Amino acid sequence: MRMPESEDALATLSGHYFQLFEDYLGNLLGTRDDGVPSRLWESMAYSLQAGGKRLRPILCLAAAERGGVGPQKALPLAAAIEFIHTASLIHDDMPCMDDDDLRRGKPTNHRAFGEALALIAGDALLLWAFSHALTHLPRAGVSFEKTSKAVAILAEASGPSGMCGGQVLDTDGESRRAGGDFAFSVASAKTGALIRASVVTGALLGDISDTDLRCYYDYGTHLGLAFQIVDDILDVTRTRDELGKTPHKDEAQGKNTFVSAYGLDEAQKLAAEASEEACRAIEELFPEGDLLIDLAKSLADRKS
Amino acid sequence: MRMPESEDALATLSGHYFQLFEDYLGNLLGTRDDGVPSRLWESMAYSLQAGGKRLRPILCLAAAERGGVGPQKALPLAAAIEFIHTASLIHDDMPCMDDDDLRRGKPTNHRAFGEALALIAGDALLLWAFSHALTHLPRAGVSFEKTSKAVAILAEASGPSGMCGGQVLDTDGESRRAGGDFAFSVASAKTGALIRASVVTGALLGDISDTDLRCYYDYGTHLGLAFQIVDDILDVTRTRDELGKTPHKDEAQGKNTFVSAYGLDEAQKLAAEASEEACRAIEELFPEGDLLIDLAKSLADRKS
Repeated sequence: MRMPESEDALATLSGHYFQLFEDYLGNLLGTRDDGVPSRLWESMAYSLQAGGKRLRPILCLAAAERGGVGPQKALPLAAAIEFIHTASLIHDDMPCMDDDDLRRGKPTNHRAFGEALALIAGDALLLWAFSHALTHLPRAGVSFEKTSKAVAILAEASGPSGMCGGQVLDTDGESRRAGGDFAFSVASAKTGALIRASVVTGALLGDISDTDLRCYYDYGTHLGLAFQIVDDILDVTRTRDELGKTPHKDEAQGKNTFVSAYGLDEAQKLAAEASEEACRAIEELFPEGDLLIDLAKSLADRKS
Repeated sequence: MRMPESEDALATLSGHYFQLFEDYLGNLLGTRDDGVPSRLWESMAYSLQAGGKRLRPILCLAAAERGGVGPQKALPLAAAIEFIHTASLIHDDMPCMDDDDLRRGKPTNHRAFGEALALIAGDALLLWAFSHALTHLPRAGVSFEKTSKAVAILAEASGPSGMCGGQVLDTDGESRRAGGDFAFSVASAKTGALIRASVVTGALLGDISDTDLRCYYDYGTHLGLAFQIVDDILDVTRTRDELGKTPHKDEAQGKNTFVSAYGLDEAQKLAAEASEEACRAIEELFPEGDLLIDLAKSLADRKS
């Protein structure tokens, strides 16, 4: 299967981190622990290897290296982040949520494995994220203090006041046009919190000042926003083949998005602005340019 | 609402820990973080406060105190364990799993809040478990090393090779009579792993030798087994009112249980044996008797 355009761009930009992560994940998934039922393992691996962009792991590894930590050391954290992200996609696609048949050009997890297994595979990925990071970060030489703190931030970003909270707002908002402020709230929680946590927790593994950490934090905030606005735009502008998932779902479900709240042109402006804000935040640390800046630019222009 | 009989017994035996935990949880649930959508919070609180036995938190607090740690210090861990347990019940009850309308005498979460919210409330509880324990154990004075290690054990016990794996075996097993060995495998993962982890992680917070830790480990293993065998027995012997949930579900779903594999009489013998094994394991540490021994005896005799 050909990679969608924006995945090519991301992989080219961040090929080193992308490959590091793919190798690590491939290695992890290569050996099943005897205690894990084989069908559960297949279901988890199916969604983990469905060809995601690996944006969050790449951000985490890149931020770690810029914070002075070899990306190898941050791999267990990057994996945990991708496990949580993948779990959220599996559950989001289920009939009681978005009811989608297609994800990344393949049948969604519950279409391939049934609803019960999809439900448990999502739970299992969430829990594996924590056992993996808490066991393997210390083994990779990260202190217990940094391990606890980084993983706590990750859990908080994904939990009731972060990603999960955003999913509820998104679902609640389906029946009404709550406008622009609401779209910002949903995006900030549903997508933004985990993208920001990827950057912040990566940077935090290193020895980094609070001032510098603030730059990563702001970068992550704006990047997450840009990412969600573009997601809303692509839902109305792209076809199923280009997108690898069902397009025009937001409108069909009456969701409150940046496009429904602001219209397409204005949403495109907002995406460009958010991307520029992200670049500005991180340019303070890298006035000569950096991969993180290129990433923010490429994500605003992504096509899938 | 009157408490079911075995909850009375457990509360009487372990009133101090029960009350400590209820106060802590009540306090936590008393203030909603602004970032958490109110409907999500209600749904999470509804299941957390549905009148559970609090067996796992009690085991954790009791083991911590016996390991030399004030139970106050272990409360964030006990809460995390109960969050995970509650999440598993919410998801287990959903239509794609056991499809149950009643839990602890009240409508199940998805009957009260809808499937989408029940799904996310379960996820949110899993994630809150980790942000809470990783943030609040260190604040209570537990070292980062003990925090990371205890929470890693908890995550592993709940994940793909523990509780989640057991749920899959349980579901897969519904269509066949796989016999006794299979019933032991399911029980050990689905119920046993988290009950054992409650005891082990509590004890681990203190300064405890590997030999002593082994006693807690064995105690937890046998206790978890006894608990599941009695659960299987109660499913066939009790009424809806006595049980607070729908009885005779196992047989209707063709589940492989200790009763279906061994018959009622033999299952009762197995439960008594498992309970005695649990007592024996911990009697090494408390030859004069202990709450943990009384708990194991009362659980084998429980009526709901």
